[in-house]
Amino acid sequence: MQLSIIKISGNIIDDDSRLSAFLDNFAAVPGKKILVHGGGKLATKVAEGLGVQQQLVDGRRITDAETLKIVTMVYAGTINKNIVAQLQARGCSAIGLTGADGNAILSHKRTHASIDYGYVGDVDVVNTSLLTSMLLLDKTLVFAPITHDGKGQLLNTNADTIAQELARALSAGFEVSLIYSFEKSGVLLNADDDTSVIGRLTAADYEDLKDRKVIFAGMIPKLDNAFAALRSGVTRVIIGRAEELPLLLTGRSGTTIQHA
Amino acid sequence: MQLSIIKISGNIIDDDSRLSAFLDNFAAVPGKKILVHGGGKLATKVAEGLGVQQQLVDGRRITDAETLKIVTMVYAGTINKNIVAQLQARGCSAIGLTGADGNAILSHKRTHASIDYGYVGDVDVVNTSLLTSMLLLDKTLVFAPITHDGKGQLLNTNADTIAQELARALSAGFEVSLIYSFEKSGVLLNADDDTSVIGRLTAADYEDLKDRKVIFAGMIPKLDNAFAALRSGVTRVIIGRAEELPLLLTGRSGTTIQHA
Repeated sequence: MQLSIIKISGNIIDDDSRLSAFLDNFAAVPGKKILVHGGGKLATKVAEGLGVQQQLVDGRRITDAETLKIVTMVYAGTINKNIVAQLQARGCSAIGLTGADGNAILSHKRTHASIDYGYVGDVDVVNTSLLTSMLLLDKTLVFAPITHDGKGQLLNTNADTIAQELARALSAGFEVSLIYSFEKSGVLLNADDDTSVIGRLTAADYEDLKDRKVIFAGMIPKLDNAFAALRSGVTRVIIGRAEELPLLLTGRSGTTIQHA
Repeated sequence: MQLSIIKISGNIIDDDSRLSAFLDNFAAVPGKKILVHGGGKLATKVAEGLGVQQQLVDGRRITDAETLKIVTMVYAGTINKNIVAQLQARGCSAIGLTGADGNAILSHKRTHASIDYGYVGDVDVVNTSLLTSMLLLDKTLVFAPITHDGKGQLLNTNADTIAQELARALSAGFEVSLIYSFEKSGVLLNADDDTSVIGRLTAADYEDLKDRKVIFAGMIPKLDNAFAALRSGVTRVIIGRAEELPLLLTGRSGTTIQHA
């Protein structure tokens, strides 16, 4: 059975008309599906309003106790429930979840030799049985990027990581397509030319393009993650513009990353 | 099959140690169960922090668009997800929901001849099939007092009403006990004496006590609602202190309201 796991990033969530258009497309995706959303600028706005200082260490945002409260409010409350209500209006029966709900995603507080990231979670386990039951009941799952440690502590967790961990775990029972929406049209042969999208990328292609320095810098960790997902059972990873979701899923837009 | 639906009010949510003690007791309740929580003072605090004025008309709080955002954040985000995480830590596999999730509770925006309550929902339908499926999977449901209109609009909804509507709808498939936590020990024979709890109240007793003016004022709408719930299929309604939850459920504390 096919399952599409689609990650959207903050720039879509911040723009009501883009979000609405995306949700039209998402609701029309056939079959089982999961949406994972990031944060957007609302959390920063609420933090500023409440006078909570954003702490940055080496350019990384630190999730202190007050920031955790705010991201829980904004991600699991405002953003998650508005997306769910809007999907319902489009005839798509969605359920909004965090990793705490049904113990779906267990994580632990990140430990780092020199930086205290605060209440940030690194994923340990995805409990697939409840998620599978809900998918089989034709429910669409909408994940906010919050998990828990099983001891009562919520943890702020990277949305890309959540999408990837869900994809890996659920690939035991589903043929999973993992779609990352992205600010470009896909993996480009020429970073300055948005029309130079590589439609299909295999591991052999990737090694070759890395050797030739065609793919470099920020794309390398993204693609390493994509190939790691394939190695752990995900059928395909697709990278492209959220606006082109229907075309991404049929391979007519974006970059589809597959074993061979 | 037995189902306990337990409503807790804001004064417990506002007090970390009372909430923690309550959740110890709630997690230990045997069988299927649903927790419905109200708001508490955090929403007011966040509204003040963000400079959103609370509008009152005839002493009633009006839910304007900004207030709706805040209650969605606080009720469905902070409060709901913290309760869920704390229940998980107690071995109780909970799922936090609003009425939008899985289209569980459909409502319409309240219409009133003279007062515009804003984004306040009056419940139309509880969709029991998903809720029943989750209960049969041994999941405990935790409801935030937010519903939706099916057209993409979230609506602020009274938590007592949500508890009652869930109890009515689910009594088609379960033997439902509806427990309202309360600032007194139960229905009192003497309003000034907290030890004068009426342990068991039938409709005949109620009529008699109303005639004799033993029960009056604010208790009458509460009890009318309780008897209405019984008439629509709920097995029993229990009113008492949240702290005494285990005793309430076995009839050794509080007031149990039953047909006869």
